[in-house]
Amino acid sequence: MIDLELITSTIKTCLPQGQDTYPLHEPSFKGREWEYVKECLDTGWVSSVGKYVDLFEERLAEFTGVKRAVAVVNGTASLHIALKLAGVEPGDEVLIPALTFVATANAVVYCNAIPHFVDNELKTLGMDPSKLSEYLADITNIVDGKCINKNTGRRIKAVVPMHTFGHPVDLDPLVEIAARYHLEIVEDAAESLGSYYKGKHTGNWGKLSALSFNGNKIITTGGGGAILTNDEHLGKLAKHLTTTAKVSHQWTFYHDMVGYNYRLPNINAALGCAQLEQLPGFIKQKRDLAKRYREIFKDVEGVTIFQEAEFAKSNYWLNALLLEPQYAPYRDELLTKTRAHGILTRPAWGLMPTLPMYKNCPKMNLAVAEDIVERLINLPSSGG
Amino acid sequence: MIDLELITSTIKTCLPQGQDTYPLHEPSFKGREWEYVKECLDTGWVSSVGKYVDLFEERLAEFTGVKRAVAVVNGTASLHIALKLAGVEPGDEVLIPALTFVATANAVVYCNAIPHFVDNELKTLGMDPSKLSEYLADITNIVDGKCINKNTGRRIKAVVPMHTFGHPVDLDPLVEIAARYHLEIVEDAAESLGSYYKGKHTGNWGKLSALSFNGNKIITTGGGGAILTNDEHLGKLAKHLTTTAKVSHQWTFYHDMVGYNYRLPNINAALGCAQLEQLPGFIKQKRDLAKRYREIFKDVEGVTIFQEAEFAKSNYWLNALLLEPQYAPYRDELLTKTRAHGILTRPAWGLMPTLPMYKNCPKMNLAVAEDIVERLINLPSSGG
Repeated sequence: MIDLELITSTIKTCLPQGQDTYPLHEPSFKGREWEYVKECLDTGWVSSVGKYVDLFEERLAEFTGVKRAVAVVNGTASLHIALKLAGVEPGDEVLIPALTFVATANAVVYCNAIPHFVDNELKTLGMDPSKLSEYLADITNIVDGKCINKNTGRRIKAVVPMHTFGHPVDLDPLVEIAARYHLEIVEDAAESLGSYYKGKHTGNWGKLSALSFNGNKIITTGGGGAILTNDEHLGKLAKHLTTTAKVSHQWTFYHDMVGYNYRLPNINAALGCAQLEQLPGFIKQKRDLAKRYREIFKDVEGVTIFQEAEFAKSNYWLNALLLEPQYAPYRDELLTKTRAHGILTRPAWGLMPTLPMYKNCPKMNLAVAEDIVERLINLPSSGG
Repeated sequence: MIDLELITSTIKTCLPQGQDTYPLHEPSFKGREWEYVKECLDTGWVSSVGKYVDLFEERLAEFTGVKRAVAVVNGTASLHIALKLAGVEPGDEVLIPALTFVATANAVVYCNAIPHFVDNELKTLGMDPSKLSEYLADITNIVDGKCINKNTGRRIKAVVPMHTFGHPVDLDPLVEIAARYHLEIVEDAAESLGSYYKGKHTGNWGKLSALSFNGNKIITTGGGGAILTNDEHLGKLAKHLTTTAKVSHQWTFYHDMVGYNYRLPNINAALGCAQLEQLPGFIKQKRDLAKRYREIFKDVEGVTIFQEAEFAKSNYWLNALLLEPQYAPYRDELLTKTRAHGILTRPAWGLMPTLPMYKNCPKMNLAVAEDIVERLINLPSSGG
């Protein structure tokens, strides 16, 4: 039998004592945040002028191992521009997981393209490469080097693996599929800063990738994001496109394409620089907490704690508890009980095709994603 | 004759002595900026949680006299959403001034609509209502209560007066034209926080209006903007649409339309609250500086300082010097000379139809806007 009381008290033993509430994630500002932010105020450099944007971009590139990082105003903006620069055009379809935050689908729509939903797998909680491979064999033709959806007649241009709760998708088979079907990979790495696939940081497999530094992420800039790429030309274009496409001149305002005002302000980048210095510590704290959850829940009946795949080293941004399938009907009761104890658990997002604006988009059979939603809850995952 | 040396030294007499360079506008943080920002860091409330966004919105609404202000990530985002909520649909045309910052046109394109360029007038530097009225009589038909461009067959849905350098457009005739031609007014008030038309704050004539708090504006949040509206329903929709259209629930993620991640982070709103407290002082300083420029340049041959119209009380965000028409060829020489003295003057923006992505958009005769660009330079305008 499942014992919701026991599960609740077991979660609590993993958390610091004496708090009234335990959010899923709380940011921590114990580094040089004050010093850097105060410098912005003292010099007046809070906006487009100042050193922290460049510094933040350099350090992000260094940490993730990509050639170029471009800091932007949030994760949604970074995915929008990443998709655009990957060549997604109006009327294209873009393959994204059914289980994701709504921004993944919205960014596709901002390109006037159509999201096409792919099932998730239990091993990574992300996109299922083998199911995708079978599906594409079934529904597509390659015509003039383009992947055409036989059912809609539209080009499928890109595939967007999203590293759910920080856990890397199985990227190698995806790379193979993308090559076979002439698709560009754009990684939605919004949740996976500090997560590695086969020893290499996530965000290195996409033609471009997107990070987020929202307040709930492993590091935060208040609001912010970054575009990552190993293509220096695309990196330059990303910077240009996110800064109104202004051509540099001492006084003339000349813009050579429809650009975006997506630049991260200097004061937010200052926060980011201080946070990035603490990232290795944050990752260790989160991995330690995941280990505590896993060990203590080993002997609790009816539930398991999600564990990274053998090819992954995850940042464990958000820990996930999975009810065994027969106990799925207890999900809402467990949410209610834990929250009554101040443990601010949460279910996964609703699947994208359950939202009114995405209900008519193309999709494959989504049985696994549906199953995950029914029996997953996220646990408080703050470090420290 | 025109004496560029004299003009340069005359500008300098209006500015504080002893600086190496005089930017067009420098932000000033002498209020409670540090106190409020520090509170965000101390409480961890830098992002979507925290009191400053609500407070900033309330105080903005109070200051501008609108029913509802919604804080967003920048001025471009605010104009994008304002246009969308005014009913601009893909394929519509939107009337905007030819002389404006590129964001005005870009925001139209983000709605998949087409900018249609209107001439500016010398009296306000903004859109010319009487020329617009004649032009619309010539090129449009009203069909089923819609304004149809006879040349393109497209609906013209909205008109966007932009208050150039803070100077209010002549709004009363525009309101009359908009009613006659079934157009919605959306004010681009990015530069006009603190500017009044006939005693009422700009931003009150549009169905919705857009403010900006970029680093160069009269108050700054690092990067930021706000949507203003006197329609409470539209205000609620603006908040919903700019916060991913998430329907409130204790744990469920349900979004009922394609929304945007345009929310202003709490730490930037904190900065905004402190800045807003100082706004009356900033306006006074800028108006005083404008007065100094005007008085001292009265006796300088060949140039005039732009002065607000009789119906306007302007924030004089950026002061403008106009060369007399016969001296227009000296514009670049004057820019070069003043900048060599550390006075970081700047010409107006290039007209929108001179940019490659807007060169084929519909437009009227733009003789006055062309004339303004040829002979206007902006002068350093920081308060204090």
